[in-house]
Amino acid sequence: MTIVEIAKQLGVAPSTVSRALNNSHQISQETKDKVNALVKRINFHRNPQASSLKIGATKTIAVIVPDVSNYFFTLALNAIEEIANNNKYHVLIYQTHESHDREVEIINELSNGRVDGVIISVAGSADKDFSHIENLKQLLPVVFFDRVIDKPEIPTITCNDCESGLEATKHLLGKNCRNILFLGISKQLSVTNERLQGFLDAHLAHNLKVDANQILLCENEAIATEAIKKALQKNKPDGVFSSVERYTLILYAMCNELNIIIPDQLKVISFFNSTVAPLLAPPLSSITHPAQQMGKAAVEFLFQKIKQKTVFQEKNIILNCSFHYRKSSE
Amino acid sequence: MTIVEIAKQLGVAPSTVSRALNNSHQISQETKDKVNALVKRINFHRNPQASSLKIGATKTIAVIVPDVSNYFFTLALNAIEEIANNNKYHVLIYQTHESHDREVEIINELSNGRVDGVIISVAGSADKDFSHIENLKQLLPVVFFDRVIDKPEIPTITCNDCESGLEATKHLLGKNCRNILFLGISKQLSVTNERLQGFLDAHLAHNLKVDANQILLCENEAIATEAIKKALQKNKPDGVFSSVERYTLILYAMCNELNIIIPDQLKVISFFNSTVAPLLAPPLSSITHPAQQMGKAAVEFLFQKIKQKTVFQEKNIILNCSFHYRKSSE
Repeated sequence: MTIVEIAKQLGVAPSTVSRALNNSHQISQETKDKVNALVKRINFHRNPQASSLKIGATKTIAVIVPDVSNYFFTLALNAIEEIANNNKYHVLIYQTHESHDREVEIINELSNGRVDGVIISVAGSADKDFSHIENLKQLLPVVFFDRVIDKPEIPTITCNDCESGLEATKHLLGKNCRNILFLGISKQLSVTNERLQGFLDAHLAHNLKVDANQILLCENEAIATEAIKKALQKNKPDGVFSSVERYTLILYAMCNELNIIIPDQLKVISFFNSTVAPLLAPPLSSITHPAQQMGKAAVEFLFQKIKQKTVFQEKNIILNCSFHYRKSSE
Repeated sequence: MTIVEIAKQLGVAPSTVSRALNNSHQISQETKDKVNALVKRINFHRNPQASSLKIGATKTIAVIVPDVSNYFFTLALNAIEEIANNNKYHVLIYQTHESHDREVEIINELSNGRVDGVIISVAGSADKDFSHIENLKQLLPVVFFDRVIDKPEIPTITCNDCESGLEATKHLLGKNCRNILFLGISKQLSVTNERLQGFLDAHLAHNLKVDANQILLCENEAIATEAIKKALQKNKPDGVFSSVERYTLILYAMCNELNIIIPDQLKVISFFNSTVAPLLAPPLSSITHPAQQMGKAAVEFLFQKIKQKTVFQEKNIILNCSFHYRKSSE
């Protein structure tokens, strides 16, 4: 049982439980007695590392990302690590592998006082229940980056995903594609949703209808492999706008398998941060995140909250993606 | 000042300092007094998380790798994480970015009792001084994987790097390459050294001399970019055997820039774990590590040491690489 679960059972905030266990003067004796009684009954032991929930005590921050094999997250992580190390902080890296359950598990563990703050990019399978993040926010400074949820009190670092989606789609429409396939992960995911909005807006601006079959959302690579193959064979798109780097690699492999020639039969543009884009056959038109800048902004925001010094005035920082047009969409 | 440094100053083992601070009955009163006097004098505070150095107390292991952007390490890490999570363990991921100094820093921090055990793949800039690992080994279970150092008491998980280097070089010699360039990181690095040995052995088996110019060792990507360009222009190799995935991507980009046609003018084979190998222009002949298997073996070895149960009889596990011949070396 974690502090969060104890709080839920007693109908109080996790921070109240934490303060009661720390014998804080801010908490009434009545509440302390209630907390201590439950803690004794369930034989609760705090994490031995969590001798204090005072902010700044652990000299450690956690970064929760879907997957370190995603080059965007690697670059952002490296920027975060560099600044954290300069501040004599440790960085714990956690991967959710796009699992909401795993994310809840990690955050419940972190609620036990292992770290001073958390930077998070939410998992793809996230549903509408973000109470775990709500609870965490009560205990610790939290900053979102890239994949965010709509919580006005939590700072976010994002990109101009909607505009980039609009521009990418307009680019394909300008190359006379009329049956463009959109590849994404989940509508619950802010980045997928924003990029999809751009995709739809571009069609609307051209007075073009979008068929439901043109929107392909896949939770993981196994599902994507099957779905992309089927879409290529059945719907025969003439363009693909991919918002997921690894799905683009699956698409390339599948086109090889099915003898579909890029760009002659299918034009492709993709969100893609790996340096491999110009080396693919054919070189890939890519939309690149300012990954280092995003990581830097996220960790500076977090330290601002941990150290309670103001660096940023605004709460939501939006950076710009850059476009690299190559052979795949010629 | 860390426990390791205190130990050095007093001329005792770090574990002795740790036990003295824990008031262990294994340590004489005289030693305890000596330790406590120094600790008081330098105003030493143990990491608040490190309330105990008892093995099994933190439910956390650390994995130290050069770089998570290297796909081999990503795959190995994922396997390590999965098994650790099944054992209700946290995984702390640390990146050295090939810096020996950073590695020493990380290990000194971990010596303060943050984790129950450490899996490490050493940094490329490592010199002959491995006293930091010697010290860590006194405190905690340690397992090496992939990049190892010659310490008979520490378990290692490696691949048949020498044989793979031999086979890769024989493949290029069989395609009539007579001026093959070897790309590696550092001779101090076990994997570079083993693969280079295979490269040399293959030449010897063909009664061919190797020129010093054929061996290109670069500590980082910036150096590699310059050095590869120079080698291509000056030495005009007809084949490249690369032991570093990201140097191969630099080589591909450089061949594009210099209009060198692979495989017509230059045949290439590389150690390469990313799934992108068959999608490159041209598809890359690759030697693949059993990354997941290696990660799995490493973490199982570590848990064996932490839980003091025997899973493996042998101390050094050597797994086999697999070869995938493609267009780049045809």
